[in-house]
Amino acid sequence: MESKGMNNHIKVGMLGIGNVGRGTYQALEMNHDRILETTGFDIEITRILNRHPDKDRGIDIPKEKYTADVNDIFNDPEISIVVELIGGIEPATEYMAEAIRHGKSVVTANKAALAVNGKYLAELAQEHHVLLRFEAAVAGGIPILTSLTTALLSNSFTDVQGILNGTTNYILTQMSEYGKDYAEVLKDAQAKGFAEADPTADVEGFDAANKLSILISLVFGLGVAPDKIPTQGITAIGSEDIAYAKESGYNIKLIASARERNGKMNCSVSPVMMPLSHPLASVSNEFNAVFVTGNAVDSLMFYGRGAGPLPTGSAVLGDIIGIARKQGKDSAYDLVPQLRYDSGLEYSEESTSKFYVRMTVTEKPGVLGKITTIFGNAGISVEAIQQKPPYDKNGERLATLIFILFEVERMQLMNALDEVLKLDVTKSIDNVIKVEE
Amino acid sequence: MESKGMNNHIKVGMLGIGNVGRGTYQALEMNHDRILETTGFDIEITRILNRHPDKDRGIDIPKEKYTADVNDIFNDPEISIVVELIGGIEPATEYMAEAIRHGKSVVTANKAALAVNGKYLAELAQEHHVLLRFEAAVAGGIPILTSLTTALLSNSFTDVQGILNGTTNYILTQMSEYGKDYAEVLKDAQAKGFAEADPTADVEGFDAANKLSILISLVFGLGVAPDKIPTQGITAIGSEDIAYAKESGYNIKLIASARERNGKMNCSVSPVMMPLSHPLASVSNEFNAVFVTGNAVDSLMFYGRGAGPLPTGSAVLGDIIGIARKQGKDSAYDLVPQLRYDSGLEYSEESTSKFYVRMTVTEKPGVLGKITTIFGNAGISVEAIQQKPPYDKNGERLATLIFILFEVERMQLMNALDEVLKLDVTKSIDNVIKVEE
Repeated sequence: MESKGMNNHIKVGMLGIGNVGRGTYQALEMNHDRILETTGFDIEITRILNRHPDKDRGIDIPKEKYTADVNDIFNDPEISIVVELIGGIEPATEYMAEAIRHGKSVVTANKAALAVNGKYLAELAQEHHVLLRFEAAVAGGIPILTSLTTALLSNSFTDVQGILNGTTNYILTQMSEYGKDYAEVLKDAQAKGFAEADPTADVEGFDAANKLSILISLVFGLGVAPDKIPTQGITAIGSEDIAYAKESGYNIKLIASARERNGKMNCSVSPVMMPLSHPLASVSNEFNAVFVTGNAVDSLMFYGRGAGPLPTGSAVLGDIIGIARKQGKDSAYDLVPQLRYDSGLEYSEESTSKFYVRMTVTEKPGVLGKITTIFGNAGISVEAIQQKPPYDKNGERLATLIFILFEVERMQLMNALDEVLKLDVTKSIDNVIKVEE
Repeated sequence: MESKGMNNHIKVGMLGIGNVGRGTYQALEMNHDRILETTGFDIEITRILNRHPDKDRGIDIPKEKYTADVNDIFNDPEISIVVELIGGIEPATEYMAEAIRHGKSVVTANKAALAVNGKYLAELAQEHHVLLRFEAAVAGGIPILTSLTTALLSNSFTDVQGILNGTTNYILTQMSEYGKDYAEVLKDAQAKGFAEADPTADVEGFDAANKLSILISLVFGLGVAPDKIPTQGITAIGSEDIAYAKESGYNIKLIASARERNGKMNCSVSPVMMPLSHPLASVSNEFNAVFVTGNAVDSLMFYGRGAGPLPTGSAVLGDIIGIARKQGKDSAYDLVPQLRYDSGLEYSEESTSKFYVRMTVTEKPGVLGKITTIFGNAGISVEAIQQKPPYDKNGERLATLIFILFEVERMQLMNALDEVLKLDVTKSIDNVIKVEE
């Protein structure tokens, strides 16, 4: 028991009560007594910033907990932890900063604010000797940040690969399992509440890039703003690509990836053909997973729910308990997890990989020769070529060509594809997807 | 940085230098500077208990670190952490107890000693205000214990299922992938060093039962001695069972399982037919994984290397860092992970499941009727029956029958099978395997 003789009533102020706020409140209601028994902490959410106390949220929250004035929370001396669940960059960042200035530790699930303002907030927290925690911001309920910054701290990591966005993983899984096309599955996902009305942040990979930016800071100690991460979404994935992947032993996944080789770190968010033998290939539907490789622990994968009120609430609550355990000590010595931006690792735009390229060409003799000559001149080796049965379109005889190319630098490939596109026989370059070995 | 102004030179004494000891020493050599930079702790293994300093271990350890007298470590006031890597129950337990009595925190990878003496050691550590940590004892490098007792503490867990033994998982994977039989694969595994000369502890499930006993204490707060856990190994798994699993969409895995329903906890180690859609089904070869279900976080899986010098060394080193972070504070309030034995949950021997039963019978009309009548009278429903082509043996016409039975209490099934065995047409009950839905 960690309880005896301490002031164990932990009062928490919560900013916002959307899905994650509701999940956090519910997870605490469900497990309050167990947490008290195991840790000795009597955790209570005493104040909630919200302008609509009368809205029905399906849970019973006493009205006197609500306030429309955030200063009621900042100025409450009994509140030692502020949970920020408003989302978005502002006013969330300023609210977190103000809570820190008032000597309160902060827990947040806000990946967008952290990816952009993590350095500012981490330094401010250190200066004020309070804690900043954000397990819920990456991969929801999966305890990846805590693990990386505690039990796994004895490793130097070379690779981080994650399926960090449930919406896109759901769409890709459904396309693959039922042979439906992207637009159809998206519509279905929206109807089921798995995708937002405006799905841009998810399907274009921006949400995954925010999370990857946070992981890069924790794992590699580098600050890479999300808009500096090469990011490719899933909107161009067609049923032809899915079909090729299936018949060749791959699953297409949207992978957020960062790796270090010889002191240089490169990263990207993009669709990848993952071989079925890779544990990430069998992560389906709305599930998330993070696969890391450390120099001692070797390969590890964490799998679970990356979203949803209760799983995300579980992570928020875990952070609250973590802070409660450290309060009253010199918390500046226990800043876990540790965002770092100064490792001195070099950021590199270079990234070599095997690639899958799908293109549409006029069906006539000599086409393949022209294209492979361009690849050859660019020093790009072809591992496999597949030609689909030709078809007629607008009076032209067309064919789909699929190339699998050996390891090549992405920019080198893009330059060669520019040349290919200039050929009069080339109608379009339809897709370029990384292939994992 | 957690470093400034503290005494950051952490001196560690190590008992034993076998595989895990070597891995710990190497992992520290590889990552010492990074750990120092990230945490401020200058960790050094200063003394090693070993009687053979001249043996070549493939690493360069200064001879003056070795001692043949364990008291040199207990009585060294500069050593604050003792790492026990001797294995076995004694003298390991007594050495750990003596280290604790000398005011030293203890890290161990010793599942056998913990499963039997965990309560004694945890209470002793608490009494002496030192820490006892053992991440490496369950699932090697996978940070399951740390996660359960920190980030996931906000959950009530209902289910824990683990592939906790790499040797048996390797054997089952090879049997399934190459259609080889048990004896052949075991021999091959022994030649490759994946199985010990005496494989009993692994193949009979005893090693997994030790680890499950530790997990039960952490997750359910109950003390269940390993020899009280119903344990069935993999030695009876035949190629017929593997073949049936493959054609029916299952993989057979040795699953260590504990679950709570309505305040009662039951547990077992046994082969289980896992549906291919379950994440545990695709954990292959020597890899381990732990799948848990919490009331907030829902399903989570942790996957990685459960053995091997460096992965296990990674976990040992993670524990050393964790203790270093807490030293100088009132560590009794930070006993993480927390072994508990007093949750008041009821231990239950009851365990219902779907079952697969394979038996050999004389091939004659009416056999099926007799057997299904016995099942019917016992209240057991049959989901599927499969009869293999009959064959002749010692002048008799025999056939293999496979039954899939709906949810049934294990003892109820065993009693019914006793009746089946009394029929003159029944030659043998060849295997009984749980089936996961």
